[in-house]
Amino acid sequence: MKFDIISNIPYIEEKIKDLEKFTEKSRPFTRLVFSQEFYDARAWLTDQFKKLGLLVSTDDAGNLIGTLNSKKHTDKIVMIGSHIDTVPSGGRYDGIAGVVASLCVIKHIKDNNINLPFNLAVYDYLGEELNDWGISCIGTRGMIGALSDEILSRSNSSGNILKDEINKIGGNTKSLSKPLPMIQNILACLELHIEQGKILEQKNIEIGIVRSIPSISRFNVEVNGQAGHSGTILMHQRADALVVSSEIITYVNKLALKLSKESNQHFVSTIGKINVYPNSAAIIPGLVEMTIDLRASSQNARQEFIDSLKDKIASINNSSPCEIVLKDIAFAPYVEMDNDLSKAFKETSQDIGLSTIMMDSGAGHDTAHLSRIAPAAMIFIPCKDGLSHCPEEHAEYLDVSKGSAVLTEMLIKLADKKIAS
Amino acid sequence: MKFDIISNIPYIEEKIKDLEKFTEKSRPFTRLVFSQEFYDARAWLTDQFKKLGLLVSTDDAGNLIGTLNSKKHTDKIVMIGSHIDTVPSGGRYDGIAGVVASLCVIKHIKDNNINLPFNLAVYDYLGEELNDWGISCIGTRGMIGALSDEILSRSNSSGNILKDEINKIGGNTKSLSKPLPMIQNILACLELHIEQGKILEQKNIEIGIVRSIPSISRFNVEVNGQAGHSGTILMHQRADALVVSSEIITYVNKLALKLSKESNQHFVSTIGKINVYPNSAAIIPGLVEMTIDLRASSQNARQEFIDSLKDKIASINNSSPCEIVLKDIAFAPYVEMDNDLSKAFKETSQDIGLSTIMMDSGAGHDTAHLSRIAPAAMIFIPCKDGLSHCPEEHAEYLDVSKGSAVLTEMLIKLADKKIAS
Repeated sequence: MKFDIISNIPYIEEKIKDLEKFTEKSRPFTRLVFSQEFYDARAWLTDQFKKLGLLVSTDDAGNLIGTLNSKKHTDKIVMIGSHIDTVPSGGRYDGIAGVVASLCVIKHIKDNNINLPFNLAVYDYLGEELNDWGISCIGTRGMIGALSDEILSRSNSSGNILKDEINKIGGNTKSLSKPLPMIQNILACLELHIEQGKILEQKNIEIGIVRSIPSISRFNVEVNGQAGHSGTILMHQRADALVVSSEIITYVNKLALKLSKESNQHFVSTIGKINVYPNSAAIIPGLVEMTIDLRASSQNARQEFIDSLKDKIASINNSSPCEIVLKDIAFAPYVEMDNDLSKAFKETSQDIGLSTIMMDSGAGHDTAHLSRIAPAAMIFIPCKDGLSHCPEEHAEYLDVSKGSAVLTEMLIKLADKKIAS
Repeated sequence: MKFDIISNIPYIEEKIKDLEKFTEKSRPFTRLVFSQEFYDARAWLTDQFKKLGLLVSTDDAGNLIGTLNSKKHTDKIVMIGSHIDTVPSGGRYDGIAGVVASLCVIKHIKDNNINLPFNLAVYDYLGEELNDWGISCIGTRGMIGALSDEILSRSNSSGNILKDEINKIGGNTKSLSKPLPMIQNILACLELHIEQGKILEQKNIEIGIVRSIPSISRFNVEVNGQAGHSGTILMHQRADALVVSSEIITYVNKLALKLSKESNQHFVSTIGKINVYPNSAAIIPGLVEMTIDLRASSQNARQEFIDSLKDKIASINNSSPCEIVLKDIAFAPYVEMDNDLSKAFKETSQDIGLSTIMMDSGAGHDTAHLSRIAPAAMIFIPCKDGLSHCPEEHAEYLDVSKGSAVLTEMLIKLADKKIAS
């Protein structure tokens, strides 16, 4: 029996509504990696896996996996899934849509006794969202051996060390210095995700086939000034770290605007996080820490941004009493999705009768990391007004179900070896 | 016997070192009003008052008072004292020097059986420092009937209501709609404080006689933008609240620099507190709240600042997708100290052999509020490098003792009615 888009909607709705309950009560929807809410949601997901008859495990990178082993003895694996963690005050669909779609796919396969010649694994990739340790995609970076000792040893603002958290949740960070052995058995990594942009909605298209994922760079900026009394230190005597930080924020914004126009490719840069010390109205800020987030499809534009920023910082350091320190904290390169898998995603969608468009992702995804060592591809489904990483984020259950249908048919196509590899 | 400056140093040192232990452990020296550390420090101060044989009470505004009643039956009061709360990551002398000096004064008076014709009251004025409710000088504003219902009903970030906190510490906010009845009995309010500036140190002068205290205005700025994904929302589609806030921070700084030069009087403005929501590196800031602190001796310069700021905000509101809301949250007018008391402070200092200078305060003080309804005056003692409201804040015990000597001799002069009033 074919995957029925309409009849699967209630199941999808139920699971999404179940998951949205796991949130910090005071700021929906917040389910930060390693938080109590996150542990609770993983317990729920473990239960869902078990109900579907999947074998539940946690790999050394801390990813939670529900596996439907093939009746045919094989090591080959096809991975589906996404992530259930959220940003602070995030949404109910980012990552979650891909996990719930995967549950729905498994349910269809089980209900219809479909035999697959490979093991099918549903992943909750650990900590996809950027966290307090300054890193995103913990689980997939871990799988491919891209979590350095420096990253694993970082402490967050509560003093918790990243590797301790990964080990506590069931990982084994001692194995993460090289790619996990299972990597060589991957036939395909497939991920469904909400678009987080406006293209599908505006063009009224049902499935976006992802062509590329931009590079993501993150930098810490530390501005050291001198704290002091806001009433007694005269204007010309100050080393106000926030005033200097504002100059950097304005500069980064203008530079990104300029480069996004000139490069004619995806280019955005954001300062979304800023901590001011001591952050009290009657005290001149003595220290500011900020994170710069940079996404670029063009390596040239990325390099121009970094060079210009460094020049600007050198110039401020020369002329102001504050001292600015810039530090790289994370990088993920620009990647392109597997051409054969993407072609198959397109054909599958069209076979089902769904409209498609090839598009570039603006956001980073776990699949970007996996694509560096295994065949990987992604589809996007529409989301309302392009809003994401905010409580207003919204996708239609119908669209999640359409995406689930595409995933299901892709697996059958892979089983039938109708995809070149 | 005259107050002996050298022999009183150990007592002063002991009390200052006692008080510095009451701090948040993770960020010395932090003793926020109504915190556990503050309650503990007040218990210590109550004990000190009792050891000196003072009558301990808390008035309706929550000020802690140790009174040495005159042997002569009288309602007349002379107030000395300052405050023991601190800003976050503040210092060990701001406010504290004045309280410890007062204890030392009382000790001298008791040890020498000096009879005063008035009741002498040592005050720990409640919550002098700007707090999370957006207000400073709770105790003295309360005494003079300047805590409005709006202020008393404010909640802090933990949801605690200001009036509840005042009542919990022993106040009675129902009485605060008009000045406390004791006000009419005040003969003089005298306060010793560290300078929090560099003038005394640079000129090598021992006692600053305060001429005036600038007006203090505080405004909340709320910048409403739209949170969203830092990877997918294109540069030209954004309503980034932090980028707009940076424009305001830069503008406020430049405007204050200009007005401080032009007005040739004390003029400073600071944005020391900024909260960004949701403050996550992968999310475009959707909301920013900031506090503007403004201190001006010239009413014209103050008005020009406010007018220019309003124009700037109107212009940003017209041209940007963010919406800025500016709100007054606190005001204390410019005041001059009592001329006769200040003259007496000068003469007393010179009699003891201490060098003096007349100077304007840059900071606000409890005495500014009291001076609106009672004869009030202040002296400053030097502090290192002009640093204050930071952990590096430092004053010499010797200088606290010199100031204590001046306070003691002032009281004797008041007793002898050698001051016009």
